[in-house]
Amino acid sequence: MERIAAYYLIETPYPVEDAAAVLAGEQSSGTFVAVPGETAELKTRFAARVEQIELLEEVSEPALPGDTPANTTFKRARVKVSWPLDNVGYNIPALISTIQGNLYELRQFTGLKLDDIELPATFTDRFRGPAFGLEGTMQLAGVTAGRPMIGTIIKPSVGLTPEYTAQLVKTLAEAGIDFVKDDELMTSTANSPFAARVEKIMRVINNFADRTGKRVMYAFNITGDLETMEANYDTVVKAGGTCAMVSINSVGWSGVKRLCDRGALSIHGHRNGWGMLNRHPLLGINFPAYNKIWRLAGVDQMHVNGIKNKFWESDDSVVRSIRSCHTPFIGNESVLPVVSSGQWGGQAFETYKRTKTTDLLYMAGGGIIAHPLGPEGGVRALRQAWESAVAGLTLEEAAAKHLEFGRSVEKFG
Amino acid sequence: MERIAAYYLIETPYPVEDAAAVLAGEQSSGTFVAVPGETAELKTRFAARVEQIELLEEVSEPALPGDTPANTTFKRARVKVSWPLDNVGYNIPALISTIQGNLYELRQFTGLKLDDIELPATFTDRFRGPAFGLEGTMQLAGVTAGRPMIGTIIKPSVGLTPEYTAQLVKTLAEAGIDFVKDDELMTSTANSPFAARVEKIMRVINNFADRTGKRVMYAFNITGDLETMEANYDTVVKAGGTCAMVSINSVGWSGVKRLCDRGALSIHGHRNGWGMLNRHPLLGINFPAYNKIWRLAGVDQMHVNGIKNKFWESDDSVVRSIRSCHTPFIGNESVLPVVSSGQWGGQAFETYKRTKTTDLLYMAGGGIIAHPLGPEGGVRALRQAWESAVAGLTLEEAAAKHLEFGRSVEKFG
Repeated sequence: MERIAAYYLIETPYPVEDAAAVLAGEQSSGTFVAVPGETAELKTRFAARVEQIELLEEVSEPALPGDTPANTTFKRARVKVSWPLDNVGYNIPALISTIQGNLYELRQFTGLKLDDIELPATFTDRFRGPAFGLEGTMQLAGVTAGRPMIGTIIKPSVGLTPEYTAQLVKTLAEAGIDFVKDDELMTSTANSPFAARVEKIMRVINNFADRTGKRVMYAFNITGDLETMEANYDTVVKAGGTCAMVSINSVGWSGVKRLCDRGALSIHGHRNGWGMLNRHPLLGINFPAYNKIWRLAGVDQMHVNGIKNKFWESDDSVVRSIRSCHTPFIGNESVLPVVSSGQWGGQAFETYKRTKTTDLLYMAGGGIIAHPLGPEGGVRALRQAWESAVAGLTLEEAAAKHLEFGRSVEKFG
Repeated sequence: MERIAAYYLIETPYPVEDAAAVLAGEQSSGTFVAVPGETAELKTRFAARVEQIELLEEVSEPALPGDTPANTTFKRARVKVSWPLDNVGYNIPALISTIQGNLYELRQFTGLKLDDIELPATFTDRFRGPAFGLEGTMQLAGVTAGRPMIGTIIKPSVGLTPEYTAQLVKTLAEAGIDFVKDDELMTSTANSPFAARVEKIMRVINNFADRTGKRVMYAFNITGDLETMEANYDTVVKAGGTCAMVSINSVGWSGVKRLCDRGALSIHGHRNGWGMLNRHPLLGINFPAYNKIWRLAGVDQMHVNGIKNKFWESDDSVVRSIRSCHTPFIGNESVLPVVSSGQWGGQAFETYKRTKTTDLLYMAGGGIIAHPLGPEGGVRALRQAWESAVAGLTLEEAAAKHLEFGRSVEKFG
C-alpha cells in the first residue's frame, strides 16, 4: 500500500515517541477513548505510523502554550509520520486536513511545524502541476537563460489611475523590463476598475510587442471570489495578457486550483499572509511543504522573499525556498521563484553566491521606480547587477563599472 | 467615505505609534522609499489610518523573531487601523490580503495578531450571510429552543464501511440524536466511497424520518477540489440530506463561498488547522475576526472547541468564541456554535454557567459512542446533563438523579 509522509519539527514535555504516537492517532483512527469498531484490522489498514524520530535539542521553556508538567525539559525532534494513501486518495484539501489539521491543537506539543511532505509517484498521473512553470513562464516573457527575469511592482500600491499606470508600464517597457505586477493590495478600486486597467495597460503592452517583438508580462491581480476571478481571468486572456496574480492564502486551495486548471495564463502565486503561517520557528509550516501543496494546485510562480529583505525572514530560509522551487516534484518541471521585498540589485551578489542560479524572477519595486535616473535607470541597474554577479564581480567593482548601478548603490546601498 | 477597521494585538520594540504607522503604510500606499505618484491627494484618499492605540504591558523578551534593538523593552498594545472601503470594495479575499497580508512579515513587530474587524453597514446589501444560520439549522434538525442540538462524530474517524456507519446512524437516531457528522479526516476512502456512504446513511435517515417525523441532520464531509465538492453537494441534496461539512481552512474562502451560495444545505464549517492560526498568543488571528470572515462566505455552523476540551485552548477563549457566534453581524442572524473536543456532558454545567445559552450544537464523539450503556445511553446522558445544567443542578446532583449521566461521570469524569 502506497503511503503519504509528512515531516514535523516538534517540541514536547513528554517522551518524543509518545507525543508522536498521539499525533498519529489523532490524525487517523484514534479518539480520546477506545471505541467499538476500532478493530485491529482497521488499525492495520488505516492507522498513521511514526516512521522515524531524529532527536534535536532540549530546552527549559516551552515555545508555545500547552502541557507543562513539573520538573521536565521540552524535547525537540524532527519526526516522520506516514498515512496510507487510501485514507485520502488524491483529494488535496483532505490531505491538508490530515497533515495540517487538528494536530496543531494537541496540548501534548509545545511546538509543531510541518516541514516537508513526500507523496507517492502515482500523484504524477493525477496532477499536471504548473501549466507553464519556470521554463514556460520565462519563455512566455521572452527571457532566455543566463539572466533572471527582471520585474517590478506598481507603486504606490493603491490609488493610481489606469492611465497613470499604463504610462508607467510604457516607460518600464521601454526601459527593458520583463515583468510588471499589480500590488497585492490592488484588485479593483474606485478609481482603477479592473477591466479599465487591463484595457489601458494591455494596449501599451500590445503596441510595444507589435513594435519590438517583446511582450512584457503583466501580472494582473485577479484575486476575489470565484465569479470575480473567472471574469477577470477572461478579461486578461481576451486582452492578450499572459499572466494573472492570485493571493493564494486569501483565495484558498480549491479556488486557486480551478483557476490554474484553465491553463491559459501563467499564475503568479502571491503568498501574503505567509508570516502568520511561518514566523514562529515552531508553529505552522515551512516552505518546502507549503510550496508542494501549491504546486499541486498548479501555481507557476511562487514568492520566496529575498536576501536581506525588508521583512523578518532569514537569508537561510530564503535560500532554502529558492532551492525548493527548483526541485522537481511529481514529475513536473520546477516553479519560478519570485524574489522580492526591499530588493534593489545590491542583493544580486549574495543571492547568486548562495544559489548559483539565475532561474529567478527578480523583483524590485521602489528600487526601480524611485531610481535617481528614473525607471529606465532602475531596470538598467538591475541588469548590470546580475551580469556583474554572474561574472564574479563584487558589488563595489560593479558600482565603479556601471553608472546606473553606481547610482543605486549611492541611494539604496 | 466609509471605512473598514481592524483591531490588532501588537508587540514592538519601537514607539507603538511608529510601529502602527509602518503597518498602515505597508498595507496601503507605502513602500520602503518615497516614490513618484504618491501625492498628498492620493494619500488622503487611499491611505490607511491608525485610529486608536490602547497601551498594554511591557515585557523584556520578544514574543517572536524580529528587530531587537539594544536596551529596549517590548511594548504591547491593542491598535485600531482603518482603510477606505474604496481600496478593496466588497472583495473579501482582497480584504483578507489587506488586513491579514504582508503585515505579519514586518520586522518592526515582535508580535501581531488580528483580533477583530468592523465593516460598514453597506456590506449587508452585498452579503446574504448564512442561508440557515443558527435558527434555520436548528429548525432543519427539528430542535426547538430550550436545549442544544445534540450531536456526535462517527468514530473511528476513518476505516468504517458505509454499512457499518449506516447501522451506527440507525442506533443513534433511535437513541434520539439530532446530528451526526463525518470526521474531518473522512472524505472518500477506499472502503467508504462518498456516494455509497451517502446512499446507505440517507436510507436510514429517510426511513427514520418517515416513521417518526424527525429528520436527523448528517454532515457529510464534502471537502475537496471544487469539482468534487459540487458533485458531492448534489449527491447529498438528491438523497434528501440537509447538511454538508467543509474543512474551511483547507478549501479556502473562495471555494467555501461558492458552496454556501448554493443555499440548499446548512454548511458545517470545520476549522481544523485553527491551531496554526491561533495557538500563539501574539501571532495569527483571534476568533471574532476569523468568524466574521467566514460568516461573509455564508458558513452556517462554526466550530468553537469546548470547555475543558482535549486540546490546548483556554475556556476563556471558547466562551468568547461562543459569544462571537451569537453576536449579530451584517444584519444576519447568528451562526450556530459547534461545541466539541473531549466533550461528554460533564462540561454542560460550566458551559451553561458561563454562557447562559442553549443555542449550541453540542457534540460528543467518544462520549456518546463509548458510553457504558451504548450510544443510546450516551445520547440520554447528554440530554440529562443539559436539562440539569439549565435547571441549576450541580454535576453531582445530576449524576445522582440520572442513571445514564451517572455512568458517564463514572467513565469519563
